[in-house]
Amino acid sequence: MDYYSRQINRLVEELSRLPGIGTKSAQRLAFHILNMPKDNVQGLALAITEARENVRYCKECCTLTDDELCPICKNSGRDHRTVMVVENSRDLAAYEKTGKYEGVYHVLHGAISPMLGIGPGDIRLKELLVRLQKDVEEVIIATNSSLEGETTAMYISKLIKPAGVKVTRIASGVPVGGDLEYIDEVTLLRALEGRREL
Amino acid sequence: MDYYSRQINRLVEELSRLPGIGTKSAQRLAFHILNMPKDNVQGLALAITEARENVRYCKECCTLTDDELCPICKNSGRDHRTVMVVENSRDLAAYEKTGKYEGVYHVLHGAISPMLGIGPGDIRLKELLVRLQKDVEEVIIATNSSLEGETTAMYISKLIKPAGVKVTRIASGVPVGGDLEYIDEVTLLRALEGRREL
Repeated sequence: MDYYSRQINRLVEELSRLPGIGTKSAQRLAFHILNMPKDNVQGLALAITEARENVRYCKECCTLTDDELCPICKNSGRDHRTVMVVENSRDLAAYEKTGKYEGVYHVLHGAISPMLGIGPGDIRLKELLVRLQKDVEEVIIATNSSLEGETTAMYISKLIKPAGVKVTRIASGVPVGGDLEYIDEVTLLRALEGRREL
Repeated sequence: MDYYSRQINRLVEELSRLPGIGTKSAQRLAFHILNMPKDNVQGLALAITEARENVRYCKECCTLTDDELCPICKNSGRDHRTVMVVENSRDLAAYEKTGKYEGVYHVLHGAISPMLGIGPGDIRLKELLVRLQKDVEEVIIATNSSLEGETTAMYISKLIKPAGVKVTRIASGVPVGGDLEYIDEVTLLRALEGRREL
């Protein structure tokens, strides 16, 4: 790629490292950026560095946020006795978009996968157990309905049922093998309504 | 989107403004960035700002570069008497990838389009005319074979033929309506070999 100059090459290279962006898209993005007003480019770069610089895990639910507590855990209007366990922050966002869930969340940042060598110690389960010592009435397990998600759901259920907490699993309205993030809101709601005790 | 925190929202927003990136992809990219090592994030942000900060038009061929002259115009091994006229820097890159073109380029940054109100004065034609006062033997017009590209080719041909310069057009091996950037290298080469005088 010696037909572009050094810095343009570097930009294309950096962009093509992002997921789902090949060399062609990276070139397209690069030239778009080169033609953007300088202020907008600064805004983009600042958004990237600031978000990364200040990102941390919510002290309560472990979702990615830039404050000690995320907006949901901070909200006293939510039902803090109902905790929905999800695999990642995007799955949280998927349920938030339905606008009908009143409880709070717990973000595991992964799922148990013996194949990939991800064990219970590699996801945020310890933090969930700590939360259960407070006033929690129900834990809704909303991991994906993939092999890993189901394994994780079973594991969590066995782990926390002895503590006397009600454990439910979202209904199988979610298509098997599907990724929660891409499912329409009606299906997500149906799955929530049809949850059953494990 | 009050389920993410402010800075994560801003990052998603900034990313979704880029071409071809919807809200879902922007979220995916944002969380990828939030999980990247800080050094890599700094590298990405720096590549973006530096490239934009230092980008300029090559004094000779008008392609986007970060130096006074682009690497191709600087290269004394290239045939500076043969000038290929292309619509943008990505089309230049497409011909460079064939590795068989020895001449130099001229980047118009657009094509004449009466529909979009883009006239001859809006693309880099004046700069091309200046170059023709030097020792140029052949101008190869490699604008796209779209309506705008053909219009531009005809216009340039009429404009510079009186100056006694040989004007050629790449062969119609390029599919009509196609975008130069996405055509395979063999077809691009065939089009170059089959060029005819206008």
